[in-house]
Amino acid sequence: MEVMICDHFRCSPLSILSSFSPSTRYHLSLPSSSSSSSFRLNPSSSSSSSSSLCSSRMEGTHQTHDHGRSKFIDFPFVSSAQKNVMVDLVSRLENRLHSQLLPCTLPPDVQYYQSQTATAQASLHIRSGSDDSPVDFVLGSWVHSELPTGGSLDITSLSAYLKSSTDAPNFVFEMIRRSPTMLVLILDFPPRKDLVLWPDDLKTFYEDTELDTHRQALERVPEVQPYFSPSLCLRTVFSPTAILVRIVTENGGVERMEEIIRDHLDPISKQVLGIWLDHCACAKRDVGEAERAYLNKRDGLIRNKTIEIDLGSSFPRMFGPEVANRVLQVIKGYFTV
Amino acid sequence: MEVMICDHFRCSPLSILSSFSPSTRYHLSLPSSSSSSSFRLNPSSSSSSSSSLCSSRMEGTHQTHDHGRSKFIDFPFVSSAQKNVMVDLVSRLENRLHSQLLPCTLPPDVQYYQSQTATAQASLHIRSGSDDSPVDFVLGSWVHSELPTGGSLDITSLSAYLKSSTDAPNFVFEMIRRSPTMLVLILDFPPRKDLVLWPDDLKTFYEDTELDTHRQALERVPEVQPYFSPSLCLRTVFSPTAILVRIVTENGGVERMEEIIRDHLDPISKQVLGIWLDHCACAKRDVGEAERAYLNKRDGLIRNKTIEIDLGSSFPRMFGPEVANRVLQVIKGYFTV
Repeated sequence: MEVMICDHFRCSPLSILSSFSPSTRYHLSLPSSSSSSSFRLNPSSSSSSSSSLCSSRMEGTHQTHDHGRSKFIDFPFVSSAQKNVMVDLVSRLENRLHSQLLPCTLPPDVQYYQSQTATAQASLHIRSGSDDSPVDFVLGSWVHSELPTGGSLDITSLSAYLKSSTDAPNFVFEMIRRSPTMLVLILDFPPRKDLVLWPDDLKTFYEDTELDTHRQALERVPEVQPYFSPSLCLRTVFSPTAILVRIVTENGGVERMEEIIRDHLDPISKQVLGIWLDHCACAKRDVGEAERAYLNKRDGLIRNKTIEIDLGSSFPRMFGPEVANRVLQVIKGYFTV
Repeated sequence: MEVMICDHFRCSPLSILSSFSPSTRYHLSLPSSSSSSSFRLNPSSSSSSSSSLCSSRMEGTHQTHDHGRSKFIDFPFVSSAQKNVMVDLVSRLENRLHSQLLPCTLPPDVQYYQSQTATAQASLHIRSGSDDSPVDFVLGSWVHSELPTGGSLDITSLSAYLKSSTDAPNFVFEMIRRSPTMLVLILDFPPRKDLVLWPDDLKTFYEDTELDTHRQALERVPEVQPYFSPSLCLRTVFSPTAILVRIVTENGGVERMEEIIRDHLDPISKQVLGIWLDHCACAKRDVGEAERAYLNKRDGLIRNKTIEIDLGSSFPRMFGPEVANRVLQVIKGYFTV
């Protein structure tokens, strides 16, 4: 069962291994005098655009963003407790980062896509950080896939990736549910530096923030067991305080699972996201040239490996070659460092 | 309970965080024509020594080594199953590395020491690698300490550390027993490089060797639970295939614990040590100057942190300030990079 879960999990473009570079992204930046509701489009391949074209693109962008966001934030296939957690986390993140986040400009058929037979559906929502933000991008998504054995697999996730102008860790939250009574939770600040070489970072981001107390709190729930990803590559990217757990409520049924999500996962995930926003996303960090190169190299290695071992092989199996190719082409543009 | 175990564990000079540099060690090297039973002493502080002095020192060294070894290999306080595992692992390691290992030259009162009231006793046995060996040193030990709450804590360990002429991982095996029905096992190849930056090393030492199958095998034993060290610093040094487990046999009693050690820990630890000997200790690795400097830096950071957070604070509590100081002074000489 674990292998199957992970196999599906690794199909997802939402894997914590996934992250994106700005090489082919459309950048939207706020004119200095504009209000937060008024965006200016700066396609990276275009050096200038007329005012009317700009206005027209802006409208199109807002429509694209709003349509994709409503599809994403709907989380149509998961339980109310799981949806509540996701919507609350997305809202907290967006409200806190606010004007730092640009609208999602992914093509509509990448913001939402499905397999030819509609047995698998997915929503992908990415918002880049503005030029002056340490946030590279925020990625939210859900995947719903009917299983050949009956039932369905549902993955919901929210991740945030920082630029190399900061060395603070990223944020990842993912719920993988293969049945109403089985859930894998991944909640971590994946470090962007080797914590053995940078013990001060271990202290700043993981010890002083008392992150491990949240892992310990969840560990005390009887139905919670540690989860080991079958991918060693994936295991190497997690922090020493990573919450990697499998929750099985076969005896208590779906009601008990909903209770655990509501009473434990919900408050813990809010607190952990709050720590990330306070101590990572909004931390003032001095990063020199050499360190920036190191961060780019390390981030890049993880991104390349993701395409090679995860998306490239598993993604077509889930969504079929045509859809997979379309989505992967867009994703690859972001992945290349 | 976990905190207490770890507190004691961290007192131990055998912690996997412990490793040693050659700065103040006495070096013994084989003359090119000699047999493996004949050692020549080269104190690092002395440029030459007369033949008679050499012969006299050689005898003294052998006596020191043999006496300390017999005390160490006796494992007087642990069960027969645990002793069998330890003796077998030490023998396999020594037989395989054979002439690469020099006799133990630690002072007798560091090879064996106890607290003033004899409530805590310990044996420490270190054999340095010869000049042409990739092995820096092999460290074996046991600690026995009566607990204020009754019962005793027993730690037995075997570790092997490689030089910066190779980038292969080290080896660590440790059994921490606080009662006849509770055991913490640590069995790992702690990596010496950041495996995110060196994915080929992840493949060579951890994936291709199928190390994780042994962790998975142990995980299937019902009494086996994952173990999380309270020290985040310690967690960062482990590999993604580290076996970090707590075994509790309260229902099955001491007989069940002995059965688990005999039927599971014994074969698994032998196989894992065999992999380390074949693929790490005896691997031919090309390490350039820059990489060697990186390895020295990374090893050094771990060693310094160990003295700071582990031995310096906890060791005196266990053995009293006088004994702790004597042993720590010797250990510190090895630790300094």
